[in-house]
Amino acid sequence: MALIVQKYGGTSVGNPDRIKNVASRVAQHRAKGDQIVVVVSAMSGVTDGLIKLAKEIMPLPSEREMDMLLSTGEQTTIALTAMALHALNVPAASLTGAQAGIVTDGGHTKAKIANITPNEVHKLLNAGNVVIVAGFQGMTAEGQITTLGRGGSDLTAIALAAALKADLCQIYTDVDGVYTTDPRIVPNAKKLAEISYDEMLELASLGAKVMQSRSVEFAKKFGVVFEVRSSLNDNPGTLVKEETANMESVVIRGVALDKNQAKITLAHVPDKPGVAARIFKAIGEASINVDMIVQTASHGASGATDISFTTDKADLLKTRKVLEAIQGEVGFKEAIADEKIGKLSIVGVGMRSHTGVAAKMFETLAHAGINIDMISTSEIKISVVINLDKGEAAVKAVHAAFLG
Amino acid sequence: MALIVQKYGGTSVGNPDRIKNVASRVAQHRAKGDQIVVVVSAMSGVTDGLIKLAKEIMPLPSEREMDMLLSTGEQTTIALTAMALHALNVPAASLTGAQAGIVTDGGHTKAKIANITPNEVHKLLNAGNVVIVAGFQGMTAEGQITTLGRGGSDLTAIALAAALKADLCQIYTDVDGVYTTDPRIVPNAKKLAEISYDEMLELASLGAKVMQSRSVEFAKKFGVVFEVRSSLNDNPGTLVKEETANMESVVIRGVALDKNQAKITLAHVPDKPGVAARIFKAIGEASINVDMIVQTASHGASGATDISFTTDKADLLKTRKVLEAIQGEVGFKEAIADEKIGKLSIVGVGMRSHTGVAAKMFETLAHAGINIDMISTSEIKISVVINLDKGEAAVKAVHAAFLG
Repeated sequence: MALIVQKYGGTSVGNPDRIKNVASRVAQHRAKGDQIVVVVSAMSGVTDGLIKLAKEIMPLPSEREMDMLLSTGEQTTIALTAMALHALNVPAASLTGAQAGIVTDGGHTKAKIANITPNEVHKLLNAGNVVIVAGFQGMTAEGQITTLGRGGSDLTAIALAAALKADLCQIYTDVDGVYTTDPRIVPNAKKLAEISYDEMLELASLGAKVMQSRSVEFAKKFGVVFEVRSSLNDNPGTLVKEETANMESVVIRGVALDKNQAKITLAHVPDKPGVAARIFKAIGEASINVDMIVQTASHGASGATDISFTTDKADLLKTRKVLEAIQGEVGFKEAIADEKIGKLSIVGVGMRSHTGVAAKMFETLAHAGINIDMISTSEIKISVVINLDKGEAAVKAVHAAFLG
Repeated sequence: MALIVQKYGGTSVGNPDRIKNVASRVAQHRAKGDQIVVVVSAMSGVTDGLIKLAKEIMPLPSEREMDMLLSTGEQTTIALTAMALHALNVPAASLTGAQAGIVTDGGHTKAKIANITPNEVHKLLNAGNVVIVAGFQGMTAEGQITTLGRGGSDLTAIALAAALKADLCQIYTDVDGVYTTDPRIVPNAKKLAEISYDEMLELASLGAKVMQSRSVEFAKKFGVVFEVRSSLNDNPGTLVKEETANMESVVIRGVALDKNQAKITLAHVPDKPGVAARIFKAIGEASINVDMIVQTASHGASGATDISFTTDKADLLKTRKVLEAIQGEVGFKEAIADEKIGKLSIVGVGMRSHTGVAAKMFETLAHAGINIDMISTSEIKISVVINLDKGEAAVKAVHAAFLG
């Protein structure tokens, strides 16, 4: 008898009929003799509706009260899902995050899980129930209701799987699994049977929107094997797990394109110690995430250099303000922003043992007539910044070269 | 500095604008220097919407899961109300029933309050907050979410007022207070400045829909003085409190008409010991509430009697089935139902010290040409069953005779 944690997102439980479908799936699994814990999100649209209500009251509601408000969304779904299982004569009981023993820190709207003591989950499972747990939420040790922020329901599922020592954690979503690249760009993109945590992490941070990094990091830390699969069919999905020896035989696992980055170039920055530190400290203090940073060599006798970096397009205005504030002190000539960029990345643990991967990528782009603007590499990833208009052509060329 | 508990019902918090109005009222009170605890219901329509969702999943949802589902309604309102106070720069924090320390028994959908340990309420009050508590809900000692059933939010307010030793409990509603009778029937009905718990209890059970009996009983048991008043204006309401000496100087406090009763007459019931017990035991076991019971004297030599009783119209079908099942065993001739009845009652602690009240009531009805079908009296109440068509005329005549 296996213990399985299944997570269904907001679209999968978006209305009573879909909740009934989820219940049927769960009932089928249970008929095989497995113990099942189901983690659900708020029904799609519900969270947005609650946010809209709050904004009608005041523009910037308190985070504590937003958690109080939004946590009702998942609580609604768990009750309805338990009822749908009852309708199929499957014993089931729902638990809020707090009742399931999910204890968090006090960081309202983006709390971190501190620990899980799933006594009540065990008790209900042992009594023969399917246990339905509200995703995205927890409670502090002092009894305050908290939410876990974006991707929180995935995190609930993976953390519960770790705490319960589950045999498998299944993340049901509206895609079939993790693909070698976006199938909307490359129709012959292939679904991956498996992928390592590190590869998944790189892909998550590179614009492949399957899952948030934090859930993958949690899974890696606690060794939770999880499967990303579709709630709309019975196709096997993609297993995300610790790297295995044979994974290295594949040179690269996937190709990702991130269209949401902007590039800022600071021209003629005085080339003296501490300047880069001053710039990125100011940006960091404004909670702006910087991704790639490239500094060119000094402009000969001028003693000046250029520094380019990328950040989310959404942070561009904030970044400009920070730079204006420090321009006099730092002494760069100007800050030039470019929103028309794409960040193309290839990811694969196979890079460690295969040489010439970067060269092959650059060559492929050159053959396709695509200019490379910035380059950044890690142990298992190579990213390049290119013109946004060339983004999809670049994905096609690189995917064809490495993944056929 | 007084401590005041205020309760606002679903209509008073029915949309964001109304929630803002409630917040303004609370802010005005607080500006006088009082500490305030606000108990709110679900926004009007929300509970019905959730029930509809549940029924789409299954016709008879589990009571545990209904509690899980419905308790989200009040949780939504508390968060929005706290935000609305924040928008007025009033420090405020919301608490679910469980967080407010409201511990109940395990009777899902109609739980009874076992005890209240409002530590968190005190803590937040002492830190200068208005504390917003979700009405209608609590938690068992084992951590199960429960709801208190009809009128539950009033009960939350009164129970909290008792536990907090509040100086006053205000029940804000859509009427101005308790009237001598329904002002829609008698336009010159007067608002009562005060009324005793017992009179309020009799009125509550007689179809005056201001409050459920259980909340009044709780208030009486713990000596909580509460005021019923309107959330739409600043008029003083009606104080409900322990009987005082001067209350007896008024002969009757109010006149009530209950149109929701039906009368059942069992004809030719064998007049022997245990028969009435057998009938009302069967009806009680079917959870049917019986109000008035009248048994006529034996029909001379036949050894048979007639028994009439009243019950809610909604229970009439169920009552008929119970009677059919026992007809053979009990041996009555037939059961005759009459839905066209009204129960007219006068209530007042003054009856104890004034004689001739019943006679004056019967005489008034006789003068108005209204026939009396059944009579039932208690220490502070006289009820008569009359023809439904004469109901409003009877209220007018009796109100004029006793209350001008």
